[in-house]
Amino acid sequence: MTHFSHAMVLDAKTRIAAFVHETPIHTSATLDAQTKAEVFLKCENFQKTGSFKFRGASNAVASLSDMARANGVYAHSSGNHAQALALAAQLHGIPCYIVMPEDSNPTKIAATKGYGADVTFCSPTHEARWKTAERIGKETGATFVHPHNDPRVIAGQGTACLELIEKLTTLDLILAPVGGGGLLSGTLLIAKHLLPDVQVIGCEPEGADDAARGLEGGGRILDFVPDTIADGLRTPLGDNTFEIIRKHVDRIERVSETDILRAMRFVWERMKLLIEPSSAVAVAPLLNGSIETSGRRIGVIISGGNVDVNAFFDLLEASI
Amino acid sequence: MTHFSHAMVLDAKTRIAAFVHETPIHTSATLDAQTKAEVFLKCENFQKTGSFKFRGASNAVASLSDMARANGVYAHSSGNHAQALALAAQLHGIPCYIVMPEDSNPTKIAATKGYGADVTFCSPTHEARWKTAERIGKETGATFVHPHNDPRVIAGQGTACLELIEKLTTLDLILAPVGGGGLLSGTLLIAKHLLPDVQVIGCEPEGADDAARGLEGGGRILDFVPDTIADGLRTPLGDNTFEIIRKHVDRIERVSETDILRAMRFVWERMKLLIEPSSAVAVAPLLNGSIETSGRRIGVIISGGNVDVNAFFDLLEASI
Repeated sequence: MTHFSHAMVLDAKTRIAAFVHETPIHTSATLDAQTKAEVFLKCENFQKTGSFKFRGASNAVASLSDMARANGVYAHSSGNHAQALALAAQLHGIPCYIVMPEDSNPTKIAATKGYGADVTFCSPTHEARWKTAERIGKETGATFVHPHNDPRVIAGQGTACLELIEKLTTLDLILAPVGGGGLLSGTLLIAKHLLPDVQVIGCEPEGADDAARGLEGGGRILDFVPDTIADGLRTPLGDNTFEIIRKHVDRIERVSETDILRAMRFVWERMKLLIEPSSAVAVAPLLNGSIETSGRRIGVIISGGNVDVNAFFDLLEASI
Repeated sequence: MTHFSHAMVLDAKTRIAAFVHETPIHTSATLDAQTKAEVFLKCENFQKTGSFKFRGASNAVASLSDMARANGVYAHSSGNHAQALALAAQLHGIPCYIVMPEDSNPTKIAATKGYGADVTFCSPTHEARWKTAERIGKETGATFVHPHNDPRVIAGQGTACLELIEKLTTLDLILAPVGGGGLLSGTLLIAKHLLPDVQVIGCEPEGADDAARGLEGGGRILDFVPDTIADGLRTPLGDNTFEIIRKHVDRIERVSETDILRAMRFVWERMKLLIEPSSAVAVAPLLNGSIETSGRRIGVIISGGNVDVNAFFDLLEASI
């Protein structure tokens, strides 16, 4: 098994510096007043392709050997990872093959193709995705890039928190959402090294609390039916991310659907940041009183802004 | 009549520096590719109270004599100016009286009161607003701050463009929305002085094109029924703003409701910036081909982010 350390995150930062945005950090006087804290939002919604996923994908692509580069990369994904890997490959001038379920969001299909990826559709089952991806891998000789369990991806995701700490120097608490665990794992690797006393809390929807239950029960939970609006957090942990999180995380905080929407609305209305529900999961514990905030310096990793606003614009168009 | 010059904007900047946010400038590779230009969005949606109005209000309040300060300020407003003036007064520790139509948006009423203003309600007619405001003025001895025609307000609004030019040094074209004309006037005063060759285009909804018609016809148009989703741009120009715009603007560009929504959606989806329809009016000409963009450096003043998202969150809440 790979030995995971903060050094992988530092290396990733150097490797991807020329490709990723150093995203801004936003604050809110209202949020600080409500929490009696200093809260810093690391805005990966402003990252290329609209989410932190571009960091991990970029590090995976930039880590390839010269021989592997020629054959390109492949993945199966219906969402943010597809777009992130496609753009990372395009910017490095290498081929990218993406397997997408045929019922994927048309906007995401268009965006993935727009970044130059070769898209293959499959039935919308877990098995069909893996089988189709395996076939593509054999045919092309491309390198598989897992959306959250790949060590290069984990290291890349940690660079968001690394930038945050470099800017702020000290933090008492860091919050990050947990889905497949790549973002939280990368965050833990770098945060616990640079700030040995920092508390890191993973934030998870009640309706997809496999990380919380897995850590409580002692084993990774693979078989569950997620029920949450936070579409980026419906996946189980990988074996790598489970081990890193088990070893380093202070705790996992469960968040209700109502609190996710309340937090998302707060960030939209008061901070004018377009964030997706998965991002709001890491803001919610600041607003519902479930964690101690008073007097603390708190960093929040905002994972992305890829939210479906079709329904809203349909309403607006009907009104003109 | 006041002599208007760029110096008023420079003075305003010094006067309000400690109170306003220096807002960020956002760019988009997709927008640049579509326009074959370099486009810079000056994000006043991230200004305090969610709009550029806080700049003008702050300058008006900071310009008061010591004697006038004691009696405070007053205005009538159903929207962004009310919140902006209330917070500016609160931060300067002086009283603020706001007359609001009784059918104003409850969120905006709550926000205005939240900033410590003394709110008086009136019937939702133009006449009732002025009569009630006049009475408040007499009773309190407070200083009236007009939302767009007050010279101190015009000067304050120009500081957004001043910050933009200071950061970017050169620009070929600047776009700003036109409602009451305070933002465009302040923009013109500073832009045409610092960059004598810059083209400045005011952007106006087709359904509230009083500025365009007024300039074509030679006189200010006061009597029209606005029909636009851009709720910040439904007001006529003031006499000061009309004169400044007439003298300095290169032209006014009319924008359709469909193009306003298309531009707003682009900025939401691709740039993850929560902007209001009035802001999108100044982005729309970049996307609908109505102005020459190729090879140019273009600044856009994004006026604010105070958009009503109730309907959207009602839909989301119904879905959980």
